[in-house]
Amino acid sequence: MIIASTPAQLQEALKLLHGDIGLVMTMGALHDGHLSLVEAARKESDHVVVSIYVNPLQFGPGEDFDAYPRDLEADVAKLEGVDVVFAPTDDVMYPRTPLVRIDPGPVASVLEGKTRPTHFAGVLQVVHKVFNIVGPHAAWFGQKDAQQLALIRSMVADLNMPLDIRAVPIKREPSGLAMSSRNSYLSEREKEQALALFRALTVGQRVAHDGGSAAQTLAAARESLAHAPGVKMDYLELVDRDTFMPLTEAGNGLLVCAAWVGPTRLIDNLEVVIG
Amino acid sequence: MIIASTPAQLQEALKLLHGDIGLVMTMGALHDGHLSLVEAARKESDHVVVSIYVNPLQFGPGEDFDAYPRDLEADVAKLEGVDVVFAPTDDVMYPRTPLVRIDPGPVASVLEGKTRPTHFAGVLQVVHKVFNIVGPHAAWFGQKDAQQLALIRSMVADLNMPLDIRAVPIKREPSGLAMSSRNSYLSEREKEQALALFRALTVGQRVAHDGGSAAQTLAAARESLAHAPGVKMDYLELVDRDTFMPLTEAGNGLLVCAAWVGPTRLIDNLEVVIG
Repeated sequence: MIIASTPAQLQEALKLLHGDIGLVMTMGALHDGHLSLVEAARKESDHVVVSIYVNPLQFGPGEDFDAYPRDLEADVAKLEGVDVVFAPTDDVMYPRTPLVRIDPGPVASVLEGKTRPTHFAGVLQVVHKVFNIVGPHAAWFGQKDAQQLALIRSMVADLNMPLDIRAVPIKREPSGLAMSSRNSYLSEREKEQALALFRALTVGQRVAHDGGSAAQTLAAARESLAHAPGVKMDYLELVDRDTFMPLTEAGNGLLVCAAWVGPTRLIDNLEVVIG
Repeated sequence: MIIASTPAQLQEALKLLHGDIGLVMTMGALHDGHLSLVEAARKESDHVVVSIYVNPLQFGPGEDFDAYPRDLEADVAKLEGVDVVFAPTDDVMYPRTPLVRIDPGPVASVLEGKTRPTHFAGVLQVVHKVFNIVGPHAAWFGQKDAQQLALIRSMVADLNMPLDIRAVPIKREPSGLAMSSRNSYLSEREKEQALALFRALTVGQRVAHDGGSAAQTLAAARESLAHAPGVKMDYLELVDRDTFMPLTEAGNGLLVCAAWVGPTRLIDNLEVVIG
């Protein structure tokens, strides 16, 4: 495995490879969720590049940019079958404060974007840059960050970027807790409390499955989360799977939620079909 | 020569070619200025693609989008040595109103951007799309649209787009008038009057050459344009060649101007060195 820390080093490494390149972008702190992305990329690519970069542009003031877990050596040790790791520094990624930026549009202002108003603009900027640096035939992203995934798909469509975006289902602990690098912040007790997110989503899914309306589905899920001890709901919404606008009638929906468990903010989502 | 009207047709045509692709983007109404871009691209590329597309996104309300000259057949006849012409329709370029857009940043709000607030965002959107559709090793742009050129260079740098941007000097009529598709709007009398733009810029250049300060250079050029009959100055400024911010001391400057000649708005620019 080659570890490249600049675009030039990366492109030098890619020259030695033949065939197509699959890309998995991460901020490190790799868990089985990331590894399932790598596994999916390996199955459909001749070679795989994994980027590890904690992108300052997607953190707001007061968020956990400084505290975000960083351990390149431990991450690299987990990346079996990966050809190249791209682990740049901030100087390399942002030699200047970027003047030209990606404007992520209206979907970036709802849900996650409401409490994190500059988050998705920062995500799309770095995703766009790494797509161009690596030049993959496809990139794999987790369904866990569903809104991010929708925005990346929009960017690729609206800007005619020459690659495919592939989604990989959420990887969960046996308990049901969605895997997240931020789970490392949780105490054992908080990990128990955090199960309330997935539980609330499954309550909603059950109501939808039993023929409930959009309003009933949403109300049941919210009711469940609102009464969970140790958990403070940020939002729980039912949105259209593609547009991320509120789903109020029949259609392919996504229950999406964010909640604080102690000082840690977690997100989760689950598909529902409103009949 | 192949004429492609969709990305799929274009990519089919490119598959038959071997070697690198040079790109020249135009809105048609081709004149010798465009052909000098094609000539430059041919010299440094195995194959050349010319795009011809009047991009609605870069026209503001009340601008000349509908009146803009369109004659594909006449344009194609001028494109000797070009391998592929990419002439898409609006449906193909914008199957939906784009949600994710290019935010061109602060340079887009000054000079041309002051009277045309959405212009450069529209330009960068279409330039970005065509770069991705064609995948050239380099693209050639005219120095005439100096602010556009600076913004495209910024976009390529800030978004790590994998191509070179090359500038071609302004092509002028023997009279000195900068070539422009919009010159076709001018009467003979207006063509005479329009010479005032280049004359004002050369007056400034002379002052700078003779050791004048930034302020003296700018004042002399403005004085010249202000007294030209039949011409209404929109702006005339002295800017830093790279940043496009006002140049007030020694440095590599660009005198840039826009003026109305009858109902037609023209632009021009000239390099000056403030010693």
